[in-house]
Amino acid sequence: MKAEIIAIGDEILIGQVTDTNSGFIARELNQVGVAVGHINAISDGRQEILDAIRLAATRAQLVILTGGLGPTKDDITKQTLCDYFDDHLVMDESVLAHVTDLFERFGRPMLEVNRQQAMVPSRAQVLHNPNGTAPGTWQEKNGVVFVSLPGVPYEMKHLIKAVVLPKVVEQFERPYILHRTLVSYGVGESFLAEKIEAWEDALPENIKLAYLSNLGKVRLRLSAIGSHKAELEAQVEQQIDALYRLLEGITLAEEDSDLELSIQKLFVKRGFTLATAESFTGGGLAQAITTIPGASAYYKGTVVAYATELKEQLLGVPASLIKTHSVVSVPVAEAMALGVQQALGADFAIATTGNAGPSKGDSDEAVGTVCIAIATPKGVKGHQFQMGKNRTRVVAKSLNKAFELLYQEILNF
Amino acid sequence: MKAEIIAIGDEILIGQVTDTNSGFIARELNQVGVAVGHINAISDGRQEILDAIRLAATRAQLVILTGGLGPTKDDITKQTLCDYFDDHLVMDESVLAHVTDLFERFGRPMLEVNRQQAMVPSRAQVLHNPNGTAPGTWQEKNGVVFVSLPGVPYEMKHLIKAVVLPKVVEQFERPYILHRTLVSYGVGESFLAEKIEAWEDALPENIKLAYLSNLGKVRLRLSAIGSHKAELEAQVEQQIDALYRLLEGITLAEEDSDLELSIQKLFVKRGFTLATAESFTGGGLAQAITTIPGASAYYKGTVVAYATELKEQLLGVPASLIKTHSVVSVPVAEAMALGVQQALGADFAIATTGNAGPSKGDSDEAVGTVCIAIATPKGVKGHQFQMGKNRTRVVAKSLNKAFELLYQEILNF
Repeated sequence: MKAEIIAIGDEILIGQVTDTNSGFIARELNQVGVAVGHINAISDGRQEILDAIRLAATRAQLVILTGGLGPTKDDITKQTLCDYFDDHLVMDESVLAHVTDLFERFGRPMLEVNRQQAMVPSRAQVLHNPNGTAPGTWQEKNGVVFVSLPGVPYEMKHLIKAVVLPKVVEQFERPYILHRTLVSYGVGESFLAEKIEAWEDALPENIKLAYLSNLGKVRLRLSAIGSHKAELEAQVEQQIDALYRLLEGITLAEEDSDLELSIQKLFVKRGFTLATAESFTGGGLAQAITTIPGASAYYKGTVVAYATELKEQLLGVPASLIKTHSVVSVPVAEAMALGVQQALGADFAIATTGNAGPSKGDSDEAVGTVCIAIATPKGVKGHQFQMGKNRTRVVAKSLNKAFELLYQEILNF
Repeated sequence: MKAEIIAIGDEILIGQVTDTNSGFIARELNQVGVAVGHINAISDGRQEILDAIRLAATRAQLVILTGGLGPTKDDITKQTLCDYFDDHLVMDESVLAHVTDLFERFGRPMLEVNRQQAMVPSRAQVLHNPNGTAPGTWQEKNGVVFVSLPGVPYEMKHLIKAVVLPKVVEQFERPYILHRTLVSYGVGESFLAEKIEAWEDALPENIKLAYLSNLGKVRLRLSAIGSHKAELEAQVEQQIDALYRLLEGITLAEEDSDLELSIQKLFVKRGFTLATAESFTGGGLAQAITTIPGASAYYKGTVVAYATELKEQLLGVPASLIKTHSVVSVPVAEAMALGVQQALGADFAIATTGNAGPSKGDSDEAVGTVCIAIATPKGVKGHQFQMGKNRTRVVAKSLNKAFELLYQEILNF
């Protein structure tokens, strides 16, 4: 079976908001064996919504709409669904009670527009939204199920997980879909493609390979479909093993255990701690590390010494070293790593210093020059790179490179 | 005129990659008066690509495709475009010279698949891609222009700005489109809607209002269309002025001068410096600040004291204070702010301490309890909030709140 996602809202079409809802829904549907054939972003117009619904009904058995359920005048999804289903809106008493309760709990006055949130299509199944005022709905026409959900990500997410997926699993026959991704670091995609060409050509019909290349990483994704879960898992596992053998010597990580997560697991398992000292990455290392729950078990913290003089004050980098080598240099990166390792009493440390542009900043080094050092209980190792001219890319590539270097150090320690 | 965007790639449909390209293209097109009617994400299949192209040709005069131009076997956009245009691929010598040069410069061996990157549809105009091996193409059929671009964001971005937009401006008659967004902090969207209802109802035909609510901010977007640029700007400016008057007393910022940017401008103008001390926000403050070029003119840096003992060591927060009040408390946040203000020699400082969950960490405070303090040259003020239970949202809402508090302090200083 196929699903289709329709994201409603001018804010997406003018590029003001990135539609992350559809990706979330696609991931969740894939996990229960439902493939998504199309994702569409359309405007808040009545005709555009009707056209999109009609088209989706010709090519999907499950259509999920997000957005356009707010209390303000620009939101018209509910009324338009009534047109499509030849239905009308009625007051749902249980939704009204819930909305009233929400306003009481937050101590805010309830307005007439808020009451209107409890109006739902008369023949729709109402999907209770505990996190907001707009309920979801579930309606069927000619064998196609239409689900309408609020566009606020955390309200939508809860409804998908708690209500929509269980109903989908109950109502539809589905195969198993499995995605596994290996992330390789430091090599190009055509190089990889040549190395694994014979293996790729021999892949069974039900397994598809995709290459995703970005910022010094190439992701190799295997997507498999089958009717027996355990068999499918074994089949894919075998192909992943083959890939590991073919790509020996290249740094690899499994995507769903991202490099940062692999690092956390290794540190926690071996009882080591980590600290970071950041310059142009501006807290990016700390953020990537602390995004993963459980980081406090091994991560001590970071010092972001954005201004040059703070590298001296907080990290004890000698002024003479900065004067001799420039603030963007391997010796300074190494001194920062050792400085923060000592100041924070950590076993390992990462330090970054570089010039991400657009202007040259405190250093004479060219834009894109980046130095990264890893301190271990045995010493320190610095590296210099040229990461290009785009500020955002320089930072992103440097974060990837820093974690790659740290991972190699802890693996080999 | 209308444009349509088609993003090609299974990685989007399974939710592995978020399509940020389409939003970028939509923003750029809007700036030259081209409205985007539909954004579609479709699979790498030949039939799916053909169907999407044919549908787009019925409702747009400009169709922009991204993705599917890589050297690997899963990329088939080029061949499929040949099918649609009844064309065939030929070797483009200038692209071949460029690809060869790229491989020489990076010292990598050039493979046969890389040579194939220089094959283009025989009747297409080739759009030179200096940043990668896949060129873009520009082709016309029955009055509809089809542009095919690589999916790698920075390659696509350069092509859009340097090549596609100038050609669009030259070839199409376009009106002016203008979006202005006011961001309001700390009030709900239905409250705002009621406050400005009479004004909203009286908006002229060519101006549309949209509400976007998320994480404690509500964005009010005015989208206007007209044939004279200066008149349109004056007309929208007048409406924005009216909004400011109607919403007096509520913290407002213009989106394209985001709060962080407004803060930077104020600090630089008044010659003040800023430092931050972060706990559960894990470098998020630093990152938001340093994402804006020019931050080094006023921002000193951050100390991320993720582990409790570092709050004592690095920030001089007395252990007794932590013991008495718990690490998540207003007095500790205030001590952190003062500590980092002094350690980094800054005029102002923000400090965050809180429990973002999912587990309770070093504190007994409930998940979602957050304390934020702002130190100024005159003293320090701490605040406590309950930000809910979702880790990501707790962090995001706290960052917004911290900048809102700082903005108020510097505005009133």
